[in-house]
Amino acid sequence: MPQTTSSTARLMDGSALARQMVEQAAERAAALTRQTGQAPCLATVLVGEDPASVTYVRMKRARCEKAGIRSRHIALPAATTTAQLIATIGELSDDPGVHGILLQHPAGPHIDERAAFEAIAPAKDVDGVTFHSFAAMSFGLDGFASCTPGGIMRLLDHYDVDLTGKHAVVVGRSAILGKPVGMLLLGRNATVTYCHSRTNDLAAITREADVLIAAVGRPRFIHGDHIKPGAVVIDAGYNPGNVGDVDFDSAVTRASLLTPVPGGVGPMTIATLLTQTVDAASRQLGATAV
Amino acid sequence: MPQTTSSTARLMDGSALARQMVEQAAERAAALTRQTGQAPCLATVLVGEDPASVTYVRMKRARCEKAGIRSRHIALPAATTTAQLIATIGELSDDPGVHGILLQHPAGPHIDERAAFEAIAPAKDVDGVTFHSFAAMSFGLDGFASCTPGGIMRLLDHYDVDLTGKHAVVVGRSAILGKPVGMLLLGRNATVTYCHSRTNDLAAITREADVLIAAVGRPRFIHGDHIKPGAVVIDAGYNPGNVGDVDFDSAVTRASLLTPVPGGVGPMTIATLLTQTVDAASRQLGATAV
Repeated sequence: MPQTTSSTARLMDGSALARQMVEQAAERAAALTRQTGQAPCLATVLVGEDPASVTYVRMKRARCEKAGIRSRHIALPAATTTAQLIATIGELSDDPGVHGILLQHPAGPHIDERAAFEAIAPAKDVDGVTFHSFAAMSFGLDGFASCTPGGIMRLLDHYDVDLTGKHAVVVGRSAILGKPVGMLLLGRNATVTYCHSRTNDLAAITREADVLIAAVGRPRFIHGDHIKPGAVVIDAGYNPGNVGDVDFDSAVTRASLLTPVPGGVGPMTIATLLTQTVDAASRQLGATAV
Repeated sequence: MPQTTSSTARLMDGSALARQMVEQAAERAAALTRQTGQAPCLATVLVGEDPASVTYVRMKRARCEKAGIRSRHIALPAATTTAQLIATIGELSDDPGVHGILLQHPAGPHIDERAAFEAIAPAKDVDGVTFHSFAAMSFGLDGFASCTPGGIMRLLDHYDVDLTGKHAVVVGRSAILGKPVGMLLLGRNATVTYCHSRTNDLAAITREADVLIAAVGRPRFIHGDHIKPGAVVIDAGYNPGNVGDVDFDSAVTRASLLTPVPGGVGPMTIATLLTQTVDAASRQLGATAV
């Protein structure tokens, strides 16, 4: 576990690491295209016209294009039914020209989003949202990671954070962030505690954490006094106004390593999506050593 | 959380509760048979002739028959391949006369047991071993519980153990016991910690537990000094010689509620299997209110 000697945390530069990952994904995508005549292709599916979702999808597609990954966008009207959405995703699952599928969340209140996710073939679930991917993450088996948890693990590895036997505390228990990141940490031999809104005396538990993952979705919720001196603190929050779940100013005087917001976990999420899309294409196209 | 005033734990009588559950399952099985002309049917699949496995399967089938649940046994030779096993399980998944499928673990070292489990249709996974069932348990969605975790939750409920905000510590992280029971506890708003063989200073963590689940598979591994006075202690171990994972004599002076071995968790496991088989049959046969 890294120890701080000064009273200021070292910042974990997710932007720089993500840039490296994207460069590598782009090189692999180019090699794959040369080798097979087909570029990796990510299908993005958006239901309705929620402005934030439109922006997210546009950003993801732009990153794909820049990395030599084709994207195919399916924009469905807000009135789309669950059955229609499942049919569309089923077609993409069967389409050999599509290697990864991303259904932008939220699909809308009238949609059974879980049923829609389950229509994604596990081999194309590069966003790591299916039951299959969650269980594979949980059991240490082959499969795609949810992108934010996968990005967090890469960041921890890049900064040589030793996890074995360490106490990792995850604050938050969502299906795509808190739960899978805890399972990934457990698979790396950390002792893992899940805390949440109903936890009694949260600070007493988070102060035991060698590695603290804030995945709460509440701005500046985790303060310096939640943090054990010298802990590694990962801020997976992204709240309006570019604000994380961690109160940076008080956390930076306690943690040994800390992710900033922006520039920490955020860029790692999309870099993981691109990397997993190339992984998926490489397997589906039967490429050798790409 | 129950508090003890004396220095001796109250024992949690899994045998008595399991008996009630089996009686109820038998009544429902009879009603279902009257209503649909079909009895619930559990298919048991055994690869090879491991004596312990033969005994377990025989015992499960006998309990089924006694409860009015038909069982169909498929005994496969030890040399069965993964592909053959998957084909057999696939046929049972498609067979409308079979409502639940149990593949006896272990299937043998040459078998890809995960691939075999995944051939079980989720609607028939009454033993709760598929990716689908694990994820459904984890996300609080509709699905079958792994039988031992499901039985533990029923036992906690029967003894009115309040879980919200309490600290539950699970020692063990297997795919069919430790991991799912932690997810079920998390779904009930406990703060959940997973410990295991690589955990540093185990006793310091278990002594924080309001509810302690021993799922280690090591005889008498959890002692009184692992236990916070007044904690609820569930011994999910079942080691040779009818010995649990908890050292009963030292635990009984610390815990407020404690499961004995035998007669605690063990009978709840099979009662959960029978109950879930009737649940599965009821849904598949489209029975009303059974």
